[in-house]
Amino acid sequence: MRVIGIDPGLRNLGWGVIDVAGARLSHVANGICHSDGATDDLARRLCSLHAQLTEVFRLYQPETAAVEHTFVNKDAVATLKLGQARGIALLVPAQFGLEVGEYAPNAVKKTVVGVGHAAKVQVDHMVRLHLPGVQIAGPDAADALAVAICHSHHVQSAGRLQQALRRAAG
Amino acid sequence: MRVIGIDPGLRNLGWGVIDVAGARLSHVANGICHSDGATDDLARRLCSLHAQLTEVFRLYQPETAAVEHTFVNKDAVATLKLGQARGIALLVPAQFGLEVGEYAPNAVKKTVVGVGHAAKVQVDHMVRLHLPGVQIAGPDAADALAVAICHSHHVQSAGRLQQALRRAAG
Repeated sequence: MRVIGIDPGLRNLGWGVIDVAGARLSHVANGICHSDGATDDLARRLCSLHAQLTEVFRLYQPETAAVEHTFVNKDAVATLKLGQARGIALLVPAQFGLEVGEYAPNAVKKTVVGVGHAAKVQVDHMVRLHLPGVQIAGPDAADALAVAICHSHHVQSAGRLQQALRRAAG
Repeated sequence: MRVIGIDPGLRNLGWGVIDVAGARLSHVANGICHSDGATDDLARRLCSLHAQLTEVFRLYQPETAAVEHTFVNKDAVATLKLGQARGIALLVPAQFGLEVGEYAPNAVKKTVVGVGHAAKVQVDHMVRLHLPGVQIAGPDAADALAVAICHSHHVQSAGRLQQALRRAAG
């Protein structure tokens, strides 16, 4: 089963794709979709993120998706901006007919590191342990891979992975 | 010149299309894109809004677009939700290659009614005065028509409309 994790952001939207076979995880690809606030207005930035993320889905054909569910802070302007980027992160998998899991950052850390308040460097370390030899495009891509790992565990523990594999094999 | 105004919302996303010829405005169409939180998850709701709004653009072929720039309140959950719907409202016109104007509610009211703190009923009344005989699909569609009227005035006063008409005639 191929899983994509997405860490939404307007400037940097991280993504990470992994393959899951039973307990075995393997890295497929990761990267960051950029949009530039200096040269483009908001609508064009969202359009660019949508096109880049759509290309990732076309290229890697994930079978299930998960998006990090963040509240950046109490700043309404920043929250609105994040919401707009998050809208794109949720839209693209739905356009490919996928269910989209959503996980709070603490749930991701708890699954990947074992504690909900792990530091970023610990998450990065555990992602590298889970996916030996992985080259990570940047912090947002590391977070996205962590979301993908988290999602694969949740799907597996719910037994839904088995069904999905049967469907995929069927 | 054909103008579309959009009042973004996750449950009800209002839209209104008007034609502008010099000082003359005429109503083309208005309506509301719905998404249902009771039956669909967030990703599917955004996907449905995107499909509905894309169909409106295909059908009415607007040449310029404007979106209301709202901060609902200090509630981060509501702001994030609005941001996600707003992401779709900005994405669709950009995918059709249009520039997207953004106006704060007070700017819309000031243009359409003459004062920035006008009541909703005044906005509705002035929209009906500007567009005689219009049948309005609901409050969100009335707001969207007001955004379209506001945008047409701003485009006109900047002289950009004349250029656009020349391009359209060219």
